[in-house]
Amino acid sequence: MSERGLLIVLSGPSGVGKGTVRKALFESEGSDYEYSISMTTRQMRKGEEDGVDYFFRSREEFEERIASGKMLEYAEYVGNYYGTPLDYVNKTLDEGKDVFLEIEVQGALKVREKMPDGVFIFLTPPDFSELKSRIVNRGTDEMSVINERMQVAREEVEMMSHYDYAVVNDEVSKAVERIQRIIASEHCRVPRVIDRYKKMLKEF
Amino acid sequence: MSERGLLIVLSGPSGVGKGTVRKALFESEGSDYEYSISMTTRQMRKGEEDGVDYFFRSREEFEERIASGKMLEYAEYVGNYYGTPLDYVNKTLDEGKDVFLEIEVQGALKVREKMPDGVFIFLTPPDFSELKSRIVNRGTDEMSVINERMQVAREEVEMMSHYDYAVVNDEVSKAVERIQRIIASEHCRVPRVIDRYKKMLKEF
Repeated sequence: MSERGLLIVLSGPSGVGKGTVRKALFESEGSDYEYSISMTTRQMRKGEEDGVDYFFRSREEFEERIASGKMLEYAEYVGNYYGTPLDYVNKTLDEGKDVFLEIEVQGALKVREKMPDGVFIFLTPPDFSELKSRIVNRGTDEMSVINERMQVAREEVEMMSHYDYAVVNDEVSKAVERIQRIIASEHCRVPRVIDRYKKMLKEF
Repeated sequence: MSERGLLIVLSGPSGVGKGTVRKALFESEGSDYEYSISMTTRQMRKGEEDGVDYFFRSREEFEERIASGKMLEYAEYVGNYYGTPLDYVNKTLDEGKDVFLEIEVQGALKVREKMPDGVFIFLTPPDFSELKSRIVNRGTDEMSVINERMQVAREEVEMMSHYDYAVVNDEVSKAVERIQRIIASEHCRVPRVIDRYKKMLKEF
């Protein structure tokens, strides 16, 4: 009778602290999310376990998965594939568990295409919200430096528009709290719970 | 530079405890919402103040407001009008303050039409989520009683579909916490904050 879990995607500009926030979130009290296990073609290292650290697969199997649309997203990095298996994510969601994905912006946009009803959270750097004063106060900066910074900010805002929520990473604990509140609230959203009520009514 | 406040509408079936939850919410720490002051044509009572308890207006002015679309919603009750003035709500939202409206379901649906970007919260009775076991356990009930209860439940679910969030009022303090989390999260929603960033970037 429990509804499908939420797919929670945490992303943002590189260097914003996604990994730190994700780690703190998983260590915090009351967190109950499944961390999405990635799939890779690289060699298993000593101490690593298949299905725990990664799903270790051959290059052939990985490419076959890409071809048949079984990867939620993937990238190639120093000769090896890394990606998120769609079947694992769907299976975990179907069990009613929330799946948490921490991922780069490009990957997140691909995930959005395949899972539009996920909860997409964009982590923003603290100084992003203080851009104005930052630029004003650095009055000594070269015009080219200011322009470059403006261009980066513009691209970041453009990326943000593809997300549901913007969370400022001013303090890790505050960012974690904001994300927890977002997840709790998303569980109260009518489109997510109404089917449960409707199904319940139909069964009589 | 601050964005427009949120219009928060709390509604639900009659008898669900809207007033109690709203009162507890306003008394709880960290609550910072403006309670929407209603407008009425009834006589001011001793101790009441115009613009505090109600906006007291003449029948002519109230009807003129209805005719010119200046009421967010209104109803007539024992010969007097009661309603929510649109200009007051808009002015308060423009000041960046959140406006909180506790209102009956019919009124809430009218508000939704005029303010589609409000946050609409449907408070559900605790036993609503336990409907199944409740009906099963009362095996001795007449079929007509069960059918009537089913019909009420169906209508409630139908109403719920017009809202953004469903909050179970199992315990007042828990319902308050859920509502606070929803409001905090809504303030992080990209469509609500992105204009601030865009405006900021344009000003340079």
